[in-house]
Amino acid sequence: MQIKVETSKNYTVFINELSQIKLDSKVAIVTNSKVAGIHLNELLKIIKAKELIIITLKDGEIYKNFESLNEIIEHLSLNKFDRKSYIIAFGGGVISDISAFSASIYQRGINLITIPTTLLSQVDASVGGKTAINTKFGKNLIGSFYQPNAVYCETKFLKTLPIREFNSGFAEIIKIAAIYDKKFFDYLQSVNLDDESLAYIILHSIKLKAQVVKLDEKEFGIRAILNYGHSFAHVIEKLSDYKSYLHGEAVAIGINMANELSVKLGLLDRLQANSIKDLLVKFGLDFNYKVQNSQEFYEILTYDKKVANLKINFVLCPQIGSYLIKDDIDKTTILELLEEF
Amino acid sequence: MQIKVETSKNYTVFINELSQIKLDSKVAIVTNSKVAGIHLNELLKIIKAKELIIITLKDGEIYKNFESLNEIIEHLSLNKFDRKSYIIAFGGGVISDISAFSASIYQRGINLITIPTTLLSQVDASVGGKTAINTKFGKNLIGSFYQPNAVYCETKFLKTLPIREFNSGFAEIIKIAAIYDKKFFDYLQSVNLDDESLAYIILHSIKLKAQVVKLDEKEFGIRAILNYGHSFAHVIEKLSDYKSYLHGEAVAIGINMANELSVKLGLLDRLQANSIKDLLVKFGLDFNYKVQNSQEFYEILTYDKKVANLKINFVLCPQIGSYLIKDDIDKTTILELLEEF
Repeated sequence: MQIKVETSKNYTVFINELSQIKLDSKVAIVTNSKVAGIHLNELLKIIKAKELIIITLKDGEIYKNFESLNEIIEHLSLNKFDRKSYIIAFGGGVISDISAFSASIYQRGINLITIPTTLLSQVDASVGGKTAINTKFGKNLIGSFYQPNAVYCETKFLKTLPIREFNSGFAEIIKIAAIYDKKFFDYLQSVNLDDESLAYIILHSIKLKAQVVKLDEKEFGIRAILNYGHSFAHVIEKLSDYKSYLHGEAVAIGINMANELSVKLGLLDRLQANSIKDLLVKFGLDFNYKVQNSQEFYEILTYDKKVANLKINFVLCPQIGSYLIKDDIDKTTILELLEEF
Repeated sequence: MQIKVETSKNYTVFINELSQIKLDSKVAIVTNSKVAGIHLNELLKIIKAKELIIITLKDGEIYKNFESLNEIIEHLSLNKFDRKSYIIAFGGGVISDISAFSASIYQRGINLITIPTTLLSQVDASVGGKTAINTKFGKNLIGSFYQPNAVYCETKFLKTLPIREFNSGFAEIIKIAAIYDKKFFDYLQSVNLDDESLAYIILHSIKLKAQVVKLDEKEFGIRAILNYGHSFAHVIEKLSDYKSYLHGEAVAIGINMANELSVKLGLLDRLQANSIKDLLVKFGLDFNYKVQNSQEFYEILTYDKKVANLKINFVLCPQIGSYLIKDDIDKTTILELLEEF
């Protein structure tokens, strides 16, 4: 199965179609120790390159930083990579974000192929061209928009995922269904997950995201709806030092917070808020989070990059299948909401 | 006078039209200690912003590095800059390159206005969207393509330039004339420099560069002709640790090396090579450079980012007003050439 993604650079996402890749140039596979341990040998049988190096980072969101970026850049430099060379990002969202950022700034841009190995990165990071690293001031504070040459999603890589990591991918799937496709939401409510339905879910989630990205690649407008649940999620991740929650887990909690905010404002009815919560629960996500200090939480929320000229744009779901962006919610309301968690 | 530059993002270069700039958002003026000392007060009278910070870097190519980049990013983060904020780059090529790179990666891209204060940055860095920092592995090894919102070139800022720095700007002007516009080359041969002709020279150089960039913004093809003289120049700058030669001075030496290579290969006649040399001399540039170690020089040449799959693309001028890219010049010929310097 294939999806053509139309952006400033068009490319194809292949689902379960990874076969021989022959590249007549230098290739760096960027991966992490965990993925390398399980899948690298298999990948090496498939990739043929003129010259191949492997850059193995430590596993974890905390390594999506300047130091890892420097490490990649140094390897590329020492091996005299040039603008015709390739980076292959082989791992989850962290690997995908940092590899793509490296590819975008090394010699002002080299070729990039991504092979996402988690459900979350297959349905989310694979499309849209957002690259990033974290700094002490915030998540994804530094980055670029940079499209890959191709993306290969393989469901076989998902079979070895820890269950928490697999489940967390559904947060992004349910996110886009909730704000953009009621039929898909209904499908997810009724589906019994097997190999075939999983491949379809990945395909359809990518299709929906690609539609949004096509309309607004650089997020000046509608693309911001993909941040539904994310403003809260980023604070949750930051406060727990990117350690306690997987990104998808934080997003699930964030979606629930956004929905409670909507209910509070009379924008979403309780029944639909519960339906979204139930669907997240169906796919193994929970909402075990306690706001320790509302003021601190709010302060970090305003540091977040969705803050434009001090207005916070909240992406809300007023009913399943549609979205609403509100930038006029006052501080008191947010603090009240946070007190409830 | 104005020039519309057409790229992935269209913008205007204003020549001697800097008047009031009002920005209803946060603005960071990035400058260096030297420029700030002479011109900052004047600029502050012109710029009105909702909130203004000034980031003053040390002066010099050696500060176009990761540390300065971090400094800028930290200031932006601490002051909660967002995607609607502006960076105003106020200085020469170094300030322009690093400010624009910062603008391109902070929150995946914020607004950028450049006010180049050297002749070289007015005619070169002002157009084309190349941003960069240097690393220990090479000049401009890290960077992006990122277009500004507007550029303001003021000849009044050039009056306080040290003469060496002023002259070095002519290397890029003569470069583009030599490979792209014989009439402009002839004009430069005959002109007596005054305020009016200087403004015309800046205008016309920008026009020529904008034409080339429009054809090939990301340098997959013809844009590479702008590297005429630059492969050699970058090695000269690197070997002298970016200290002994201004960029334009190194480019003048590099142009002469490229021309001697062309003469050696029978591609350019001696008379025309001398005409180009004479024009560089007319504008105060000289060729006082000695290759100490040809092997080392050659080695660094192959590290340079114009090397694609180990072929070196040399941009040559076969006759005044035209260009030629050759990728099949053998190592021996290059070493022979280098021995002559």
